[in-house]
Amino acid sequence: MKQTIAIQGIQGSNHHKVAQLYFGNDVQLDECLSFDALVSSLMNEKSSYAIMALENTIAGSIIPNYALIDTNNIHINGEFYLNIHHHLMALPNQTIEDITEVCSHPMALLQCKEFFKKYPHIKLVEDADTAAVAERIQQKQLKGVAAIATKTAAELFNLEILSGEIQTIKTNATRFVILQKKPPKNGIDQIDKASLRFELDHKRGSLATVLNVMSDCKIDLTKIQSLPIIERPWKYAFFVDVTFEDYENYTKAISVLEIMTTSLKVLGTYKNQRNQ
Amino acid sequence: MKQTIAIQGIQGSNHHKVAQLYFGNDVQLDECLSFDALVSSLMNEKSSYAIMALENTIAGSIIPNYALIDTNNIHINGEFYLNIHHHLMALPNQTIEDITEVCSHPMALLQCKEFFKKYPHIKLVEDADTAAVAERIQQKQLKGVAAIATKTAAELFNLEILSGEIQTIKTNATRFVILQKKPPKNGIDQIDKASLRFELDHKRGSLATVLNVMSDCKIDLTKIQSLPIIERPWKYAFFVDVTFEDYENYTKAISVLEIMTTSLKVLGTYKNQRNQ
Repeated sequence: MKQTIAIQGIQGSNHHKVAQLYFGNDVQLDECLSFDALVSSLMNEKSSYAIMALENTIAGSIIPNYALIDTNNIHINGEFYLNIHHHLMALPNQTIEDITEVCSHPMALLQCKEFFKKYPHIKLVEDADTAAVAERIQQKQLKGVAAIATKTAAELFNLEILSGEIQTIKTNATRFVILQKKPPKNGIDQIDKASLRFELDHKRGSLATVLNVMSDCKIDLTKIQSLPIIERPWKYAFFVDVTFEDYENYTKAISVLEIMTTSLKVLGTYKNQRNQ
Repeated sequence: MKQTIAIQGIQGSNHHKVAQLYFGNDVQLDECLSFDALVSSLMNEKSSYAIMALENTIAGSIIPNYALIDTNNIHINGEFYLNIHHHLMALPNQTIEDITEVCSHPMALLQCKEFFKKYPHIKLVEDADTAAVAERIQQKQLKGVAAIATKTAAELFNLEILSGEIQTIKTNATRFVILQKKPPKNGIDQIDKASLRFELDHKRGSLATVLNVMSDCKIDLTKIQSLPIIERPWKYAFFVDVTFEDYENYTKAISVLEIMTTSLKVLGTYKNQRNQ
């Protein structure tokens, strides 16, 4: 039986691309039109894995997705970096001057903002998924409307690319995580990265002390993000990603952090995929 | 002559509320339908101040806004915390069962997500501004469509509140900053908070060392956020907010940080408005 992988968006979306590159083509897809639906698919055991965008260079961390992982107690089992390429596409035989409206995911619109400054006659409209717009243009034969999506979407839905690589920052890497409902069983030799969430009292130097411990245990920080916990004033939550060479050093650091923080949760331990 | 204040959104929006509470009612408003337009208003000297939402409990930091402040070299002159209240409103004499579509700002939709789980027949549509939707519903007499906006918007545009306080987290504080094109001239006695941006080489313990200096100088961290600089691999940028009691200690820390970081920029020094 084929494994079912939940993706945000439909076939031809960037999440689909990650599914193909990570799991190959021999999988069943559960196409979800929101990140909430994606997590539900995992929680209801409709799918065994879910793929979720978690951060990118332009928009930074997608905090609501961190919250989804945290509150549903799901696990990060792996990560994948994808260079995002945005292409402007529409029904054949139209020029960019014919286009009056571009619909796409808010993130895609944000990442192509500079390009559209040259075309003030084009209205930018937010939509749930990049590829779903491409599909709709084809199904409803919408003239004057363009999608921002992947090459695969253009091929799948027979659209013509009006302009390629329209994203502002050309090396626009997005980090995706592979999620599971149950704790994954990665072998220790497969693990050199971890995602943590911890809380600290608002006391001068409390974060510095935690980072000193990490540094002493030869653990590198690749990401840090504080989040005030409004319901509990003067408590701060931190989402932190760390990399390490020696798993034993990591477990040592975790033991110390369990004592030093008011709450510590390992969201996942997995293999670092970041190219150096 | 009245001062002109640029706000994101139109009258009745949360940005408008902040403008009223911070500057009073005797001001001219420049209503901007995007954060880009807001910054342009400041850069073109159409307005003397701009009000910009920068972070909130649910969505975390609005990173693209940090980038706007940074790349345009504008200055943070003050901050303001507003408890956001979202109300569902529509033309009079309708019930929630009559509503098929709710349009609002993506942030407002996100913050009321839980409420709408009870009404799966309602389609959520993203729009540029909370209050602008309320205005449109009135102008076009749209039945079956509801807005999520402030009480002021309901009053301004003669809409009826179908359900009040529909935000998931009841104490939903959003932090706004007051921006200026030129460096503000806050008196030293008015300053106990600063927003910084710095870059560090990816070297183990480099951030811990910086935080140790801050702690030694009796400076408290209220926010930290790392951002990979994709164009320059293995460099990290940090956005940090700090508070302090003694301005001299702050300047001492800044002098040390100028040596320790590869690039340091003070985005603004101002008065901390956070209730403790």
